[in-house]
Amino acid sequence: MKYIKNNFFVEKVNLQKLTKKFDTPLYCYSYNKLKKNINNFKLNFSKLNPLICFAIKSNSNLNIIKEIKKLGLGADVVSKGELVQAIKAGINPKKIVFSGVGKTYSELNYAVDKKILLINSESKSEVMEIEKIAKSKKKIVDIGIRLNPNTDAKTLNKISTGKKGDKFGVNQKTFIELVNYLKKSKYINLKCLSVHIGSQIFENKPYEKMLKVIDRILSKIKFRFNYIDLGGGMGISYENDKKIFNYTNYQKSIIKFLGKYNSKIIFEPGRSIIGNTGILISKIIYIKENQSKNFIILDAGMNDLMRPALYGATHRIIPVNKTKKYSNKTYEFVGPICESTDKFLSIKKFQKLKEKDLIIVCDVGAYGSSLSSNYNLRPKPAEILIKGSRIIIAKKRQKLKDFI
Amino acid sequence: MKYIKNNFFVEKVNLQKLTKKFDTPLYCYSYNKLKKNINNFKLNFSKLNPLICFAIKSNSNLNIIKEIKKLGLGADVVSKGELVQAIKAGINPKKIVFSGVGKTYSELNYAVDKKILLINSESKSEVMEIEKIAKSKKKIVDIGIRLNPNTDAKTLNKISTGKKGDKFGVNQKTFIELVNYLKKSKYINLKCLSVHIGSQIFENKPYEKMLKVIDRILSKIKFRFNYIDLGGGMGISYENDKKIFNYTNYQKSIIKFLGKYNSKIIFEPGRSIIGNTGILISKIIYIKENQSKNFIILDAGMNDLMRPALYGATHRIIPVNKTKKYSNKTYEFVGPICESTDKFLSIKKFQKLKEKDLIIVCDVGAYGSSLSSNYNLRPKPAEILIKGSRIIIAKKRQKLKDFI
Repeated sequence: MKYIKNNFFVEKVNLQKLTKKFDTPLYCYSYNKLKKNINNFKLNFSKLNPLICFAIKSNSNLNIIKEIKKLGLGADVVSKGELVQAIKAGINPKKIVFSGVGKTYSELNYAVDKKILLINSESKSEVMEIEKIAKSKKKIVDIGIRLNPNTDAKTLNKISTGKKGDKFGVNQKTFIELVNYLKKSKYINLKCLSVHIGSQIFENKPYEKMLKVIDRILSKIKFRFNYIDLGGGMGISYENDKKIFNYTNYQKSIIKFLGKYNSKIIFEPGRSIIGNTGILISKIIYIKENQSKNFIILDAGMNDLMRPALYGATHRIIPVNKTKKYSNKTYEFVGPICESTDKFLSIKKFQKLKEKDLIIVCDVGAYGSSLSSNYNLRPKPAEILIKGSRIIIAKKRQKLKDFI
Repeated sequence: MKYIKNNFFVEKVNLQKLTKKFDTPLYCYSYNKLKKNINNFKLNFSKLNPLICFAIKSNSNLNIIKEIKKLGLGADVVSKGELVQAIKAGINPKKIVFSGVGKTYSELNYAVDKKILLINSESKSEVMEIEKIAKSKKKIVDIGIRLNPNTDAKTLNKISTGKKGDKFGVNQKTFIELVNYLKKSKYINLKCLSVHIGSQIFENKPYEKMLKVIDRILSKIKFRFNYIDLGGGMGISYENDKKIFNYTNYQKSIIKFLGKYNSKIIFEPGRSIIGNTGILISKIIYIKENQSKNFIILDAGMNDLMRPALYGATHRIIPVNKTKKYSNKTYEFVGPICESTDKFLSIKKFQKLKEKDLIIVCDVGAYGSSLSSNYNLRPKPAEILIKGSRIIIAKKRQKLKDFI
């Protein structure tokens, strides 16, 4: 993704031309960037040779998951819908882990039938439910237990998941109880200890603390786990490219931790694989002047991209066609939805814009389309995957008749 | 909606029985409550005989809009999708107003063809766009202009819409310019001044200020508007029934204001009509004990009801079947979604709950189903409308194949 003679290209495709054909708002992904992210992720953890399960919740587009599958990844799913989607994309069930605090009977039942690698359980009650299902089917089911390590991920409160006040996983006492209980179970094979402390983590410290907690509990219970599932959470920069998660240090910490144990590592990355591969292209419908600022009213709204409204997240905005004239006014980029929350970003120095100009909202590959809705009865944008000069419709633009 | 012998009923329907047939999570609406709200609204403003346009964005369920139409209301729409839905529900286009800051060319074009009552414009550029369309079609189009009165609605920042820093409407200077410009327009008939200062308003003061601003501008420009559209925003109580908006005072203020003018009043209520008519019924999947609190893990998540995650909104939670045993622990009601944001409410003293029990999330008729999504690839709940003992499926539960 870069400017060629002031026009923005995704691989070999000119965005101005792309939107003429497919209209706006438009999600657009770069296959090369996806491939690079996955290869980098593998390379960064090459000494561990982990099982990498892509977190489907971050992007549930079938055609994109198919590419991710071809690049060798498994899947981390959190619902029956995501499990169906992963299998539909061709992912081998033996590379699928099922996470989540609220798996229903029917979801667990389906997962057992599909013989997935692991059901990562998050409560005593869930373990009992799985045992009941396994017993009724006369099957042995492989599971993991998610430990809440009570570790502060030093990230936004809204995306922390590993503190004791969070709903996720079980505390150490329950964990040990469950291990002891499952040692004697005829129907459940406890194979995995899983943790996940949150999202958008940039420091190695929280991960080190997390590993220490796991180490302490492992040396206490003396139970051999085939898998240690460390979740995901590795941060990506939304603001500038200087803030980078140090994978080398994390790998070192894991190798040090693993020394005594002989478990396969599982990762569940989402954002770090798909986040920076996607952009949202939007057209300026109107520009409304105001004494203090100009409102740039886009044809993309919070229903298309929820992160700014939901988390106060910042996504960079850049023009599709670069010019050299700058505006003195603050530009406030807003959507067409009838809510004040429907606001993307205020920028103090931006190139002069006019109505019908195209802009790009950056780094929306993760939790972009997957969190989108039909609020205000607006159809969801089309999603395009670019492979060199090839243009693949990963998802068609919704029509009104599809949902009303 | 009330308990009969400790079982919750919506009109004559026992919820326990209803969920056996339709499963959970389940949206359920009371027709009688809807009818009562609409009749009360009419009664409260009976001296004004206003045109009441239901804000479709608050609830876009076709079958519910059909009932609202039969009870005599028009529609306030904010997109082509909502306009299509309103017409589909049988609402006369002459009772439809089209609001919103970002109406596209194609949306305006469609609205002009449908000959709706008013397009309420929010910027100079939009007025020019409408004029261009009208000219090309050789039609005369009736419009309103939305004034931003720069009035603090004293409500949550996220739902304020009438301050000068908000994206909505035009300021007084632009308003006067546009009125003068449109006096000479061959293709546009300026018929309405519209305002809307926000949502969840309980005091009359902000409305009085708003009316003063309108009065000042009207006496300055000496232009006769057929309609004054005062928007909506009348608050409803989510916490207890004591907090009530005083309609009598508001009507008095409007009558006083209208003295000099001879305009028809338009209202655009959403929440005050539909908010308290709807509930979300959810089943407890698991209860997870914790030293300080118990997590009550529901089968309804933030994808089904976004308001707590998006606005920090509070919705009361009550049991479907009442008992007399209370728990000493704090109950934290959370959804199954893999996000810490997926949390509904913490309650300190609640009746003792067990897994599979049913609970009710109250007052979700507005911005409940309309803001729902398929995040985590979860199907949307069914929506049921109750009329006495009649059970009407207002919307079927989504199936996975409907969206993946």
